[in-house]
Amino acid sequence: MVHRYIAISFSVIVLTIKEEMVTDMDLHTLTRKLKRKNDTKIVLVVADGLGGLPVEPNGKTELETAATPHLDDLACRGVTGLSIPVLPGITPGSGPGHLGLFGYDPLQYDIGRGVLEALGIDFQVGPEDLAVRGNFCTLDQDGLITDRRAGRIANELCVRLCGKLSQIELRDVRLFVEPVREHRFVVVFRGEGLSDGISDTDPQATGAAPLSPQAGDPSSQYAAEVVASFLQQAEEVLKEEYPANMVTLRGFSRYPEIPEMSEVYGLRSGAFAVYPMYRGLARLVGMTVEEAGKTLTEQVQSIQTRWDDYDFFFLHYKYTDSTGEDGNFSEKVSRIEELDSVIPDLMKTDPQVLIVTGDHSTPSLLRSHSWHPVPTLLVSPNCRPDQVSRFEEATCLSGGLGQFPAKYLLTLALAHAGRLEKYGA
Amino acid sequence: MVHRYIAISFSVIVLTIKEEMVTDMDLHTLTRKLKRKNDTKIVLVVADGLGGLPVEPNGKTELETAATPHLDDLACRGVTGLSIPVLPGITPGSGPGHLGLFGYDPLQYDIGRGVLEALGIDFQVGPEDLAVRGNFCTLDQDGLITDRRAGRIANELCVRLCGKLSQIELRDVRLFVEPVREHRFVVVFRGEGLSDGISDTDPQATGAAPLSPQAGDPSSQYAAEVVASFLQQAEEVLKEEYPANMVTLRGFSRYPEIPEMSEVYGLRSGAFAVYPMYRGLARLVGMTVEEAGKTLTEQVQSIQTRWDDYDFFFLHYKYTDSTGEDGNFSEKVSRIEELDSVIPDLMKTDPQVLIVTGDHSTPSLLRSHSWHPVPTLLVSPNCRPDQVSRFEEATCLSGGLGQFPAKYLLTLALAHAGRLEKYGA
Repeated sequence: MVHRYIAISFSVIVLTIKEEMVTDMDLHTLTRKLKRKNDTKIVLVVADGLGGLPVEPNGKTELETAATPHLDDLACRGVTGLSIPVLPGITPGSGPGHLGLFGYDPLQYDIGRGVLEALGIDFQVGPEDLAVRGNFCTLDQDGLITDRRAGRIANELCVRLCGKLSQIELRDVRLFVEPVREHRFVVVFRGEGLSDGISDTDPQATGAAPLSPQAGDPSSQYAAEVVASFLQQAEEVLKEEYPANMVTLRGFSRYPEIPEMSEVYGLRSGAFAVYPMYRGLARLVGMTVEEAGKTLTEQVQSIQTRWDDYDFFFLHYKYTDSTGEDGNFSEKVSRIEELDSVIPDLMKTDPQVLIVTGDHSTPSLLRSHSWHPVPTLLVSPNCRPDQVSRFEEATCLSGGLGQFPAKYLLTLALAHAGRLEKYGA
Repeated sequence: MVHRYIAISFSVIVLTIKEEMVTDMDLHTLTRKLKRKNDTKIVLVVADGLGGLPVEPNGKTELETAATPHLDDLACRGVTGLSIPVLPGITPGSGPGHLGLFGYDPLQYDIGRGVLEALGIDFQVGPEDLAVRGNFCTLDQDGLITDRRAGRIANELCVRLCGKLSQIELRDVRLFVEPVREHRFVVVFRGEGLSDGISDTDPQATGAAPLSPQAGDPSSQYAAEVVASFLQQAEEVLKEEYPANMVTLRGFSRYPEIPEMSEVYGLRSGAFAVYPMYRGLARLVGMTVEEAGKTLTEQVQSIQTRWDDYDFFFLHYKYTDSTGEDGNFSEKVSRIEELDSVIPDLMKTDPQVLIVTGDHSTPSLLRSHSWHPVPTLLVSPNCRPDQVSRFEEATCLSGGLGQFPAKYLLTLALAHAGRLEKYGA
């Protein structure tokens, strides 16, 4: 029985490797082979959390409620559809949501929690980095946790304590301890050979002692020792700092190996994003991050200014998501209308391909990210227009793009930009 | 680095196993297991390059413009949709486009350029063959290329020079040198152990000497020596034939290993195609190629004549593609109408399943193959009809087949023909 089980498993593995070459895993093997350079421009507008839900029976979504004459005009000229960020029913975080839109399979490229937290505070994570989330916590005299968040200490105290922890010295490893807010911070260990197969030290319960960092595989043994040394010294450094007299760490993750957009698509890509997380995600796939200002108008102006410098422009707009997270339906409607108002200026650049979509839905009804497909439109002189004349969830359902995995959006953009050779003769 | 690579490979394998559970890889493993024989007939009509684009804002496509009463009648009775030949945004050549329609994943089965060129001149490529495209070129007295196409010599000269090259003798290898047109020809090396990991000899530039054929892997070393011997002799044979005094070779490819339709589907399949390329592609998947005449009417008559001999009939119609490639919108419209006119005769055979589709789109606007999904209809007594009553790109968007990968079309045909057992109990 054992033998048979092994044999079957093996054949599955072999089959899947072939399948990978043939289907989506290796979308980039295909784009690398077919990519073609030309002078066309592609603009990707990501209205974060764009998709929504009605809040009452027979009601409208935020997008359906908003007055969006310019987006509707684009819908008339373009082709529309609904993108599925990861898989049906799967709600993505910002990382997977954006990776999909950049054409990277979000199930293949897993960005760890530590790295995402570092990206979110604009820390420039690099290829030798092992990043992890930290919490200040409170220990009693027996070394047991009484508060996993150390009473949510003030931001200022978090900054001061991170400064103290930064002084810790580790042999052959450079240490960064950066405050996030309240009890939260990020630790980055920079050095050779730091694997991330290390268990969390947060026991996720009070009345228990912080756990030791354990290596889950032999290659992580060295990193586990480095982390243990850090924790030992941290305990010493913080012992007089009650209630924040210790730390826990979770989500050890290395900087992911992701091929750059220039390499896989032949695109010079620029990111025009205000918030650190999205700038960091763009940097992760090799985009140049521009100082794009603070407002949508400034972002659009920045794109116009840098028009000659890139082939691909990523414009990120945060407020369609944050208003959804706040459960503020009418404010999300207003923010969608604000986005609509800059479309004419954006179109003055006359891109070959303009895409407007979101990285996921954030219905104000749910006050959170959701799995619902995301309204998407693509405008290009060589698109096949559909009958859709309003940019809304309901109308996009009959659009020419259908419902499609988000990871194919970039291939579609390249095709419409004339940037892909024919496959096979 | 080695350790790191191993770790990464491992994680990829783990991911792919997961992926496999959710996708399709072994469609043929499934059809082999489930196939059932009966007396039903399936007819697949491929209108090459069928899909199109409007040439002006709010305009119609070629298919939407054409008067197609018989296809519309089938759309009323049948189920429609849009097929995606390879992946969203990927424009296929004829090879991948047809393999998909025959139920073969076009990314899994890659047909090399040399083999396709051989198929295109009706050369019967076999399992021991290494095929490659050749160009006559002009060398100056220093052996540098002055014209990569030898002034596009006349077809007659190409035939004569290919005859001369055919006389070259190679030990243990049978040689075929077949003219294509002007400076283009095909070389086929037939013999045991000829691998195709050989680099092109065309330097893709003038002022450079032809390159030596290099083996990219140890198993191709023998073939590289055979090719080098051919080239050495070719130089001697052609030295007085200025301007066609040398050749370059590119696209070395072996006859691909593709399982036959009889084996994977249990179908006796016949091809009714006029052009060599499509006859060759059909032969590649094990179809019997019939002498089907030159016109659509003759092709339909041939199908009627051979009705008892096959379970599956592939009818290929070229002119919807060639008129699109010519950028001739109105001629493509006429050719679609010509196809429509033979539908009643074709339906007299009363097939259990009739499918009309294309291998890709060829919009006359673009004068080339494109990535746009292809209108598809399937008629069968047991199909679930949709509301679509016109066979057009726009209407097919709301069809019951949805937008689907072309490789699933054959499984659908088998199902409607009652030729697949239930999967699982």
